Amino acid sequence: MYTLYGMSGSGNCYKPALLMRQLGIAYRWVEVDLIHGATRTPEFLAKNPNGKVPLLELEDGRLLAESNAMLCYLADGSPLLPSERWQRAQVMQWLFFEQYSHEPAIATVRFWVHYLGKGEALRDRIRETRPKGYAALGVMEQQLGKTAFLAGNDYTIADIALYAYTHVAHQGGYQLSEFPQIEAWLRRVERQPGFIAMQS
Amino acid sequence: MYTLYGMSGSGNCYKPALLMRQLGIAYRWVEVDLIHGATRTPEFLAKNPNGKVPLLELEDGRLLAESNAMLCYLADGSPLLPSERWQRAQVMQWLFFEQYSHEPAIATVRFWVHYLGKGEALRDRIRETRPKGYAALGVMEQQLGKTAFLAGNDYTIADIALYAYTHVAHQGGYQLSEFPQIEAWLRRVERQPGFIAMQS
Repeated sequence: MYTLYGMSGSGNCYKPALLMRQLGIAYRWVEVDLIHGATRTPEFLAKNPNGKVPLLELEDGRLLAESNAMLCYLADGSPLLPSERWQRAQVMQWLFFEQYSHEPAIATVRFWVHYLGKGEALRDRIRETRPKGYAALGVMEQQLGKTAFLAGNDYTIADIALYAYTHVAHQGGYQLSEFPQIEAWLRRVERQPGFIAMQS
Repeated sequence: MYTLYGMSGSGNCYKPALLMRQLGIAYRWVEVDLIHGATRTPEFLAKNPNGKVPLLELEDGRLLAESNAMLCYLADGSPLLPSERWQRAQVMQWLFFEQYSHEPAIATVRFWVHYLGKGEALRDRIRETRPKGYAALGVMEQQLGKTAFLAGNDYTIADIALYAYTHVAHQGGYQLSEFPQIEAWLRRVERQPGFIAMQS
């Protein structure tokens, strides 16, 4: 059985949990309190030198870091990661978009505001970061005006990756009401078989 | 023939160029001056709504963004992207590490210092960012003390992705002399068949 080290409320940790539920893969969840330093202990750093969750442990002890690498690994061979080369390239494009252009703005502001309670103290930094988050939402909105899901008309791990922090973007002060295609897509994701909500 | 829209001196744009040379794939390079706004024109945004280079155009006009998605697409079926599932997962882990933990610190400080000439004006921001870059280099150093290349003993697209900005990290003021395993690995990458240097 897989072991998933993660923190409840983290979108990155929710991604592989949601995927494993949808693929019917059994796993054990180990809560890691990153806010209080649990990813920086010598024991944890021996498992992941980059000191981050999620971390996926296989039954034989092999370890895999990076939430989106887990999605690719776990979904390989399933319809959630298409085998056709161009389709797969579209999925990959959205996975890298998520980690580079979306998460650092959407998830980071949410972390500052919702977890650290520093909405006021970090006001200037938030004012600088939020437009980048809205730009990323704009890119998604444009795509979702053309296709039902991000990589085309089928649900894939690209949707899981981008659902994770988009559906809680309001906790960082983002207004999703300006993005009707995104709002409709959030509901489509939530209607997928095996969907589970993120634990908070 | 592929068309690669990119800016000379950009590590992200260099990645698919290096890979295509190594795989013997012909391509046409179109220089895009992002510093002077060429990725923000209506014409360019129609090709890539995220307004970034590199951008890969196929002969039939299909478009792919995100440098690491290009690496996956182009290397698919070659030894540079292993087909074995766990090996492939290791490559993916390093590709996401690069875009999330390495590039935003290493490439960003280089951009501020080397391209914008704001090493002094952005001193506080650089002082805050540089430890993240050194942390990423530390993670690489640890891996390269165990294996010849990042994802194991064979050269893969993970090495291309991380070579791109590591070999010019000094232009952002990073001292690589503290990282002997990385320095030896840079030379190993440069000895790979078909290697070309980044245009500056």
